[in-house]
Amino acid sequence: MKKNILKLILSTSILVTAGVYAGDNVDYPDGYRTWTHIKTMALHKGHPLENPFMGIHHVYGNEKGVKGTKSGKFDDGAVLVFDLLEYKTQGNASTEGDRVLLGVMVKDSARFPSTGGWGFEGFKGNSHTQRLVSDGGQSCFACHTSEQGNDYVFSHWRD
Amino acid sequence: MKKNILKLILSTSILVTAGVYAGDNVDYPDGYRTWTHIKTMALHKGHPLENPFMGIHHVYGNEKGVKGTKSGKFDDGAVLVFDLLEYKTQGNASTEGDRVLLGVMVKDSARFPSTGGWGFEGFKGNSHTQRLVSDGGQSCFACHTSEQGNDYVFSHWRD
Repeated sequence: MKKNILKLILSTSILVTAGVYAGDNVDYPDGYRTWTHIKTMALHKGHPLENPFMGIHHVYGNEKGVKGTKSGKFDDGAVLVFDLLEYKTQGNASTEGDRVLLGVMVKDSARFPSTGGWGFEGFKGNSHTQRLVSDGGQSCFACHTSEQGNDYVFSHWRD
Repeated sequence: MKKNILKLILSTSILVTAGVYAGDNVDYPDGYRTWTHIKTMALHKGHPLENPFMGIHHVYGNEKGVKGTKSGKFDDGAVLVFDLLEYKTQGNASTEGDRVLLGVMVKDSARFPSTGGWGFEGFKGNSHTQRLVSDGGQSCFACHTSEQGNDYVFSHWRD
């Protein structure tokens, strides 16, 4: 009897662990380069967020993501991508360089209740697998709480 | 008889003129903000093209336009948009401002044989009707000839 209970506890524990792992995992946003470009901004040396966000970043969204940047309210399924590239100025022209990282926010209220309903992830450079977020998105969310009135999103649609 | 010939000449002349006018006219690219973002660049004060291109510009393309920036050869129907915005730097951050102009290139080999098969137009600020190109695109083309090897297009796809 004890053995069976132990088995049950172990199985449940494995299932829950697997579930949590899958739940916290934010997928690489395949195909985002043809999603809609929402806005662009560049952060330079000396900016409070220069580490790790120095460079030029473009924000892309899937349909629900774009809709949210217009309304300030994001439906589950909304995805926003923060595409950060090196930024080089020479001869009075600034051009895009290599990719520094790819940030992703996925809205899923059920899966991510402790971070405003958003899952956060970062992918290093051009990697689709090398993940940068190890605290379940808590540090990302800490900064995004300032934007609670816009559903924790900094970006607004730029016409 | 003479009167009829005169009438015929006049009618033909009107038709041809109307045809040429329609042929040279590049449409405002409705819906381009949800087309694919190809690349971005900023030109600063002192750049040879600062007048009229100072600011940050994004290049967008329709499907054929994007395909061309990858292959270096553009099919008829390709459209590229050069979206120029003011660019302000403050507190070590550069942000997008008002729209300066919207440049458009449309590939149609039959309609635009004297400018590399491309029709060129510019729209002032956010206007869909206030046109900036008055020479049939010859001055635009003069600069774009340097890019003959890329079908007269400066932009290349940025992954």
